[in-house]
Amino acid sequence: MTDTPVPFTERDYAERMARAAREAAAVGLSGLLVTPGPDMVWLCGYQPTAFTERLTLLVVTPDSEPRLLVPALERPDAEAAPGAGALRTTDWRDGQDPYAAAAGLLRPHGRYGVSDSAWALHLLGLQEALPLTSYRALTTALPMLRAVKDEHEVARLTVAAAAADATYEQILSVRFAGRRETDVAADLTRLLLEQGHSQVDFTVVGSGPNGANPHHEAGERVIEDGDMIVLDFGGLKDGYGSDTTRTVHVGEPTREETRVHDIVREAQQAAYEAVRPGVACQVIDRVARAVIEKAGYGDHFIHRTGHGIGVTTHEPPYMVEGEEQPLVPGMCFSVEPGIYLPGRFGVRIEDIVLCTQDGGRRLNTTDREMALVS
Amino acid sequence: MTDTPVPFTERDYAERMARAAREAAAVGLSGLLVTPGPDMVWLCGYQPTAFTERLTLLVVTPDSEPRLLVPALERPDAEAAPGAGALRTTDWRDGQDPYAAAAGLLRPHGRYGVSDSAWALHLLGLQEALPLTSYRALTTALPMLRAVKDEHEVARLTVAAAAADATYEQILSVRFAGRRETDVAADLTRLLLEQGHSQVDFTVVGSGPNGANPHHEAGERVIEDGDMIVLDFGGLKDGYGSDTTRTVHVGEPTREETRVHDIVREAQQAAYEAVRPGVACQVIDRVARAVIEKAGYGDHFIHRTGHGIGVTTHEPPYMVEGEEQPLVPGMCFSVEPGIYLPGRFGVRIEDIVLCTQDGGRRLNTTDREMALVS
Repeated sequence: MTDTPVPFTERDYAERMARAAREAAAVGLSGLLVTPGPDMVWLCGYQPTAFTERLTLLVVTPDSEPRLLVPALERPDAEAAPGAGALRTTDWRDGQDPYAAAAGLLRPHGRYGVSDSAWALHLLGLQEALPLTSYRALTTALPMLRAVKDEHEVARLTVAAAAADATYEQILSVRFAGRRETDVAADLTRLLLEQGHSQVDFTVVGSGPNGANPHHEAGERVIEDGDMIVLDFGGLKDGYGSDTTRTVHVGEPTREETRVHDIVREAQQAAYEAVRPGVACQVIDRVARAVIEKAGYGDHFIHRTGHGIGVTTHEPPYMVEGEEQPLVPGMCFSVEPGIYLPGRFGVRIEDIVLCTQDGGRRLNTTDREMALVS
Repeated sequence: MTDTPVPFTERDYAERMARAAREAAAVGLSGLLVTPGPDMVWLCGYQPTAFTERLTLLVVTPDSEPRLLVPALERPDAEAAPGAGALRTTDWRDGQDPYAAAAGLLRPHGRYGVSDSAWALHLLGLQEALPLTSYRALTTALPMLRAVKDEHEVARLTVAAAAADATYEQILSVRFAGRRETDVAADLTRLLLEQGHSQVDFTVVGSGPNGANPHHEAGERVIEDGDMIVLDFGGLKDGYGSDTTRTVHVGEPTREETRVHDIVREAQQAAYEAVRPGVACQVIDRVARAVIEKAGYGDHFIHRTGHGIGVTTHEPPYMVEGEEQPLVPGMCFSVEPGIYLPGRFGVRIEDIVLCTQDGGRRLNTTDREMALVS
């Protein structure tokens, strides 16, 4: 495994756009309308320097070459994107109506998939310019468009996971007791960047009662001896995500803390072992939840078991009740059950897992036992 | 002027939400639907730690207290927001349908303003859950909702502008020739952070031909003696934006460079002098454009003259042809004409200007003459 990723080529982007157009047609869509964000990065490699109210729109349809409509200001940047050669770029200028320009690229009665994160401003502008078009959210229409990773994508996710694991190994030797959560979070940020991340998305340090809020990031609380601490961190390296959680303890844990940690670890292991092609995503959630419910903590596992990862750190497929999508080799996602005892402490353990023909493969490989820190 | 801002109170947020509800009713809306982002921060002080596919929705209506619907995970954070006491918080859990939960807060035949940057995913979810509702983009329906700043907001914008000005004064003494644009951009980032910015949004260093692309950020180009360099930078300090541009030169400029810079400076001055209550935004654009057109460079001024600034660095009102909104005391916006000569160089000069009863007041006050750097 090398640290230098294989560059994606114009051909990779052309193939992704062609596949997206085929999959759109297969579900009855006239095409896909993609605004700046992860779908656009994945499809054509273009990321504007800023996301603004100006319309930038990639139109992918089965019956013509992909087209990218950009504000005139952005044109030089758009034409420098690695996938630019695989599409036709057009522009609009301040003062012109961008929705009229976009309408010229669309069918008046078309049914389009549109980026989940496309601005309502733009969707309403398109709905007004072409009142007979209809729209579905891209993730609703084609939830698995980016879900199955090719070998070069898996290689990048593996490298990103290894960088997060190295970060975890190093954080174990820093001082916890007597320092604020934000100090440890800053250590995590520094280590992730040292390990080659270009972007840090989150550095959760949930000590003692803060660990019982799964959405807590890091605050001013000073970590004390006896604290359980949830460490959940990740970001992007070479354009692909990392995301791992371990729960550590300052000094010796109580019997209850050990028991809760054991239950979460058992739930995480059981869910991991359930990963194989053809198993529905919701089954992964059920398997983890069953372990925690059986142990009597079902009311304290208050989130889904996992989410996909790729050019973002949170994306489909979701390991959640109601998600019937079967796992497919190449899917990468988190397995991260937790138990949260309000006002006291929380425990969460998370690995990124790749679905292979033979079952799950963990991309995070650090020890899942409760580490004792000082 | 002190560097410690006056904190916004629960009452400030309650008043903003009440005013927003009144303004919504006045334009025939049943209410406003606000998703995470600048509108939500401004209305109730809440900013989730991450923007995800999970629905977080503030509902502001004239006929009931404001309500904030959040994922259960986010509830503790939401209840800790400074405006949380002025609204009622409800939540939904993973596995539940968030659009059904939101529908319970809405009128089936309602007509709502929705955040410009609300995800299409969420708008489509609401449109499906309540097919008889209709929507307008918040900025289209109430473009000026956040445009008129109160005295505490102006104080924060003034402090942010002063911090950007201090950054400019300091960047003049760094070495330019022989260093890459990205090196100077890193200096700008460091200086903005040293001057108290919490977030740097952009650090444009457009040297020589790169300056002719108004959307260029900073690249690997090594700055040379004789280069014109566009420096455009800003971000957030205490939650309010800064944004200023000066164009500097390495060594002695040519006559043409001096002339182009003089024209842009004259255009910027003329547009600034045109600022007073009642003048339409498009007039500010026309005044700047007329100067540049008269000098024969009209085809090379390829963007609008300015944009508002507040809790974001780009927002209404826009100084652009077609914007008939009259200026109102308290509006803060950029005045930033430019001339771009492809393959050669660009010039842009930008100040944030406050509209007062007596005319414009520049918040950026550094010298607008072309500075010579080394």
